[in-house]
Amino acid sequence: MDSLVIGIDVGGTKVAGGLVSMKGRLVSSLTVPTRAAKGFATSFGQVVHLISRLIDRAGGTDRIAGIGLCAPGPLDTKAGIIINAPNIPGWQKVPLAAKLGEEFHLPAKVENDANAAGLAEVLFGAAAGYRHVFYVTVSTGIGTGIIINRRIYHGKNGAAGEGGHVSIDPTSPYRCGCGALGHIEALASGPAMARRARVFLEEEHTTSSHLRDLTHGNPSRITPELIEKAARAGDKVAKKIIEDTGFYLGVWLAGMITLLDPEAIVMGGGVSQIGEPLFKTIRKTILRYTLNPGLAAHTPLLPAKLEKLVGVYGAASLFLPAGEEIEHGY
Amino acid sequence: MDSLVIGIDVGGTKVAGGLVSMKGRLVSSLTVPTRAAKGFATSFGQVVHLISRLIDRAGGTDRIAGIGLCAPGPLDTKAGIIINAPNIPGWQKVPLAAKLGEEFHLPAKVENDANAAGLAEVLFGAAAGYRHVFYVTVSTGIGTGIIINRRIYHGKNGAAGEGGHVSIDPTSPYRCGCGALGHIEALASGPAMARRARVFLEEEHTTSSHLRDLTHGNPSRITPELIEKAARAGDKVAKKIIEDTGFYLGVWLAGMITLLDPEAIVMGGGVSQIGEPLFKTIRKTILRYTLNPGLAAHTPLLPAKLEKLVGVYGAASLFLPAGEEIEHGY
Repeated sequence: MDSLVIGIDVGGTKVAGGLVSMKGRLVSSLTVPTRAAKGFATSFGQVVHLISRLIDRAGGTDRIAGIGLCAPGPLDTKAGIIINAPNIPGWQKVPLAAKLGEEFHLPAKVENDANAAGLAEVLFGAAAGYRHVFYVTVSTGIGTGIIINRRIYHGKNGAAGEGGHVSIDPTSPYRCGCGALGHIEALASGPAMARRARVFLEEEHTTSSHLRDLTHGNPSRITPELIEKAARAGDKVAKKIIEDTGFYLGVWLAGMITLLDPEAIVMGGGVSQIGEPLFKTIRKTILRYTLNPGLAAHTPLLPAKLEKLVGVYGAASLFLPAGEEIEHGY
Repeated sequence: MDSLVIGIDVGGTKVAGGLVSMKGRLVSSLTVPTRAAKGFATSFGQVVHLISRLIDRAGGTDRIAGIGLCAPGPLDTKAGIIINAPNIPGWQKVPLAAKLGEEFHLPAKVENDANAAGLAEVLFGAAAGYRHVFYVTVSTGIGTGIIINRRIYHGKNGAAGEGGHVSIDPTSPYRCGCGALGHIEALASGPAMARRARVFLEEEHTTSSHLRDLTHGNPSRITPELIEKAARAGDKVAKKIIEDTGFYLGVWLAGMITLLDPEAIVMGGGVSQIGEPLFKTIRKTILRYTLNPGLAAHTPLLPAKLEKLVGVYGAASLFLPAGEEIEHGY
């Protein structure tokens, strides 16, 4: 029987896990709540519980080649340490690879979730066949991963690829969750779209707005999905918000193309579900802001494919032959 | 006797060349005018003439391992083609590696000048001992090179590393030479500094200005050197220009650190000669705009070392063992 890899994706609300074959086929998957608020012992217990169930399904540890785990925030991938996972209390400076190794007597590796997702999209998803890809996920935050030669680029400290925290408007009044001004995450994430909508709804008295109806006049209910729905119904404010968001993402991605010259960009996450209205503005803006529009026009912007299980695939990829972790610094 | 490599650096006004040993020692160097205005036949003739003289000095082609040449602008390094060298009329779509190979019966390679300079600084200069470096040269334009594992990162088309054309202020009124708005080259290059100074001199009626004296009231005489001189003499306008320039460079480099997590940044070019007053503002701004100030504080910003002959070293590096051209895509 073929070996299997366990892939675990730890998020603020749930932990997803799966058994993945050496050829990248998902054999089995499971999800449990993270119970993040209850602290590290509880949430780590959830992860252990999930892994145990997956090992049972596999028929024991003998068939398991390793455990790959991905989580948000900065990690020391070389030492296998979670430095600080936002929204998961207690997941700070945890030597997670070592802890999992002790618990299950299996090799274990950890990775940033966006890096893992980028690798998964290159190995099995939207960018299958490409070698050099810039991966973006736009949802509550903006995560990115740089894939070079089908491998995650880590930089010196394993901190590379945090493209969501590049400022493209340093005098912007909008402060990122990390504290800096004008980071693309503060300008074009889901919460940034909702903030734009609230500003419009609070200030705009002249335009009749589907958005106002959809949220029953309660600006705190605004989500990217509602904005998209309102735009489809012809709401001008909603259309403007999608256009502004696409503009900022386009300026930012123009820079990424100029700098990294990737073969493709893959975009996932909740905000990207808006689809063509958003992608159209992004593509148009990239051509205006990049150095070589001719090259950029041939750099496809692809919607992500794996979505919900992308983290599971990505974490498992850390043990797959084509996705093996690469020399420190790449 | 050891083999030698010929390194050639083609600029708009002069062509510099040198004989470099396999260990990276400069054995001999020469400079001739480019005579760019006279067209390709003349300027290419200058290059051929220079190479012939260097071959003579080496005692014949037998001792020469190869000819490396660097030039500004986009190149197809894989095919050895100069796509478009700005300020050198006729150097468009020239299969230069092949032409040099035919002329001298020697292997030849071409490279973008900022990429070559970055490689040279890593192999022999300010970043000797580092493997992952972001190289910047700030003068008439802003050129950059991404060095990963002591090799030039090329991207898909060989167009990677054009960091000077990343927009960090998309609503800026300042248009880059390439046509886009808010590229760092349009905000912080030598001409951008001079433009800031002219705006001040034309509008500022209240402040007595050393800068005004140094330029004899003629704004077209402003250079970064004069701005630095005026700042040293206490001129507030000149100090403000250096601060603004450092601010933009800092915002931009903060993004590069967040994205690439290099071991060091090397900064060369005429504007960088301003030195500590500029570097201080850059360092301060990086910490404000990067995701991980702790990591950024340990990413040194080093003044370039090789300066005038950096292109010669860089071009020669293309044939040196540690600087061999790497697999397409890196």
